[in-house]
Amino acid sequence: MEVSNNYITIKTHINGEPKESDFELKTATLALSVEPGSYDVIVKNLYVSVDPYQINRMKTHSSSQKAVTASRRITPGEVVDAYGVAKVVASGNPKFEKDELVVGRIGWEEHSVIKEENLINKLDPMGFPLTYHVGVLGTSGLTAYAGFFEVCKPKKGEKVFVSAASGSVGNLVGQYAKLFGCYVVGCAGSKQKVELLKEKLGFDDAFNYKEQTDLKSALKRYFPDGIDIYFDNVGAEMQEAAVANMNAFGRVAVCGVISEYTDAGKRAAPDMIDVVYKRITIRGFLIVDHMNVYADFISTTSDQIRRGDMQVIEDIATGLENIPSAFIGLFRGDNIGKRIVKIAEE
Amino acid sequence: MEVSNNYITIKTHINGEPKESDFELKTATLALSVEPGSYDVIVKNLYVSVDPYQINRMKTHSSSQKAVTASRRITPGEVVDAYGVAKVVASGNPKFEKDELVVGRIGWEEHSVIKEENLINKLDPMGFPLTYHVGVLGTSGLTAYAGFFEVCKPKKGEKVFVSAASGSVGNLVGQYAKLFGCYVVGCAGSKQKVELLKEKLGFDDAFNYKEQTDLKSALKRYFPDGIDIYFDNVGAEMQEAAVANMNAFGRVAVCGVISEYTDAGKRAAPDMIDVVYKRITIRGFLIVDHMNVYADFISTTSDQIRRGDMQVIEDIATGLENIPSAFIGLFRGDNIGKRIVKIAEE
Repeated sequence: MEVSNNYITIKTHINGEPKESDFELKTATLALSVEPGSYDVIVKNLYVSVDPYQINRMKTHSSSQKAVTASRRITPGEVVDAYGVAKVVASGNPKFEKDELVVGRIGWEEHSVIKEENLINKLDPMGFPLTYHVGVLGTSGLTAYAGFFEVCKPKKGEKVFVSAASGSVGNLVGQYAKLFGCYVVGCAGSKQKVELLKEKLGFDDAFNYKEQTDLKSALKRYFPDGIDIYFDNVGAEMQEAAVANMNAFGRVAVCGVISEYTDAGKRAAPDMIDVVYKRITIRGFLIVDHMNVYADFISTTSDQIRRGDMQVIEDIATGLENIPSAFIGLFRGDNIGKRIVKIAEE
Repeated sequence: MEVSNNYITIKTHINGEPKESDFELKTATLALSVEPGSYDVIVKNLYVSVDPYQINRMKTHSSSQKAVTASRRITPGEVVDAYGVAKVVASGNPKFEKDELVVGRIGWEEHSVIKEENLINKLDPMGFPLTYHVGVLGTSGLTAYAGFFEVCKPKKGEKVFVSAASGSVGNLVGQYAKLFGCYVVGCAGSKQKVELLKEKLGFDDAFNYKEQTDLKSALKRYFPDGIDIYFDNVGAEMQEAAVANMNAFGRVAVCGVISEYTDAGKRAAPDMIDVVYKRITIRGFLIVDHMNVYADFISTTSDQIRRGDMQVIEDIATGLENIPSAFIGLFRGDNIGKRIVKIAEE
């Protein structure tokens, strides 16, 4: 059977704030069957992830594009590959059967043809909604877990600051840190987000960074005893303010720098005198290097969710055609929690 | 016996480039004997270290001043304490005897009264000139050794970039790196220094940063395969250029940032997109945290010197009164190798 396969692509490379007109919905004809001898797996996409880092793939040039497969440059006209949950429609690969659920590298499209079997894995939903496997039990969760435990190397009682704390990764970092026994303050960009952090997610405190005229002073008020760990999702002046408020042996885990992604002139210039004398470590990371914690991550996090200790905050849009607006909204801070787009019913 | 004890101090706090008029030579009367019951040790200072970091102690305010004892703020009028080699003149402490050589925290003065015994240690010259124990076998050497081996965690064959490479620490880092089996390029501020690095110290290559209009492009030429380790002595734009040229899993050991010390507006703003995607670690360090390698450092380095594998580059001025000019010159790049001031004959 042949179908019209709708997909989302970029019209040209995007080097600043993304806008609707940068994207287009295109259609290709796709056979929902596999040629004899082919190992292809054809899947129907159900839920896909929408993440800020994808903007770096859409640029004409970014050093990020050479890093790993998942960060390679997107060519205009080509589908944007993305993490998500799908169902097998046809398979030439004996490892996957029709109607099985899979999770992994699919795309912003209705159906994907998976040519490399290591891009996807069979999915056991473990009784959770499928969206959990895109977010809290997917790459966002793993990023938060590995970034916090492996990169930040926390000790109980340490003071943790999280930026973009209501975002897909930030909200989980804050929750892991609280459950681990740290003091946690988050910042976010609206009153509603700040309330969520304090009232639903158990952060010790939270503030709206847009209401602060001096971030360094603000952090001094929220951390009178200094910051031990800063989980950085935004970069630029927030990182500078965090470093200025850091304690000796403080650690900055640089997960992402959303405020710098769409403004090449924006940079974090942390005071290196602080870095030297406080023996601060600023470290960037990608989860591909931390797959060793995957099994721990899944078992710990699924237990925490079942016990009700971990709150799952999702922000789900519906319809392939709404992916561009869902994506663009990330850079305006529209999302609360993990932004996912539902492409089809299971 | 009482003597007139000359010492160097600052007249007021120094918040920019230091100049001669910021310093003064003062005199106090000192008894060269110890009161019964006192544990004081009175020493005659022979050689003292002159180091860029001291400028941070002279500022009205710097976050560095709270870090460790050796970095605490200097009050105008008070002697500048500094690392050096001295000889015991009188001792109330049974651990030290008259005429013994000691090394440790003395001062920019003719005699020092050591009130805390852990500030000094007995010195066995091991057949080396006393100046070696101020520099290559003293704090400069330990900084280079611990910084390179413990903070940079090198692997053989890795590409190492060292800034201020003819300076007290940089020249040793380059030599350790070469002896360890790395590819090493250094930068310095004069033709003479560059020649020293290439011809005497065995650096694979070296360049004069003052002749470069674009540091990022320069490093691209010197490291066509990228930089794995950057040993940072200068900060600011050189750090940015190094990060831009770094390979995946690159490490920046921030030892000092001399170009930022005298210009509060100068900052390194490394591209955090590089830091994330290349998983770069930028880490500040102080040797007080790495005393565990001290014994290794001494045995390794003394062997390397004896075998002629390690060249000792010293820049020795004579006379207490010349300490201010020797110190000021550091910020103009006057020194080649370890700058030491000889205060008295043994």
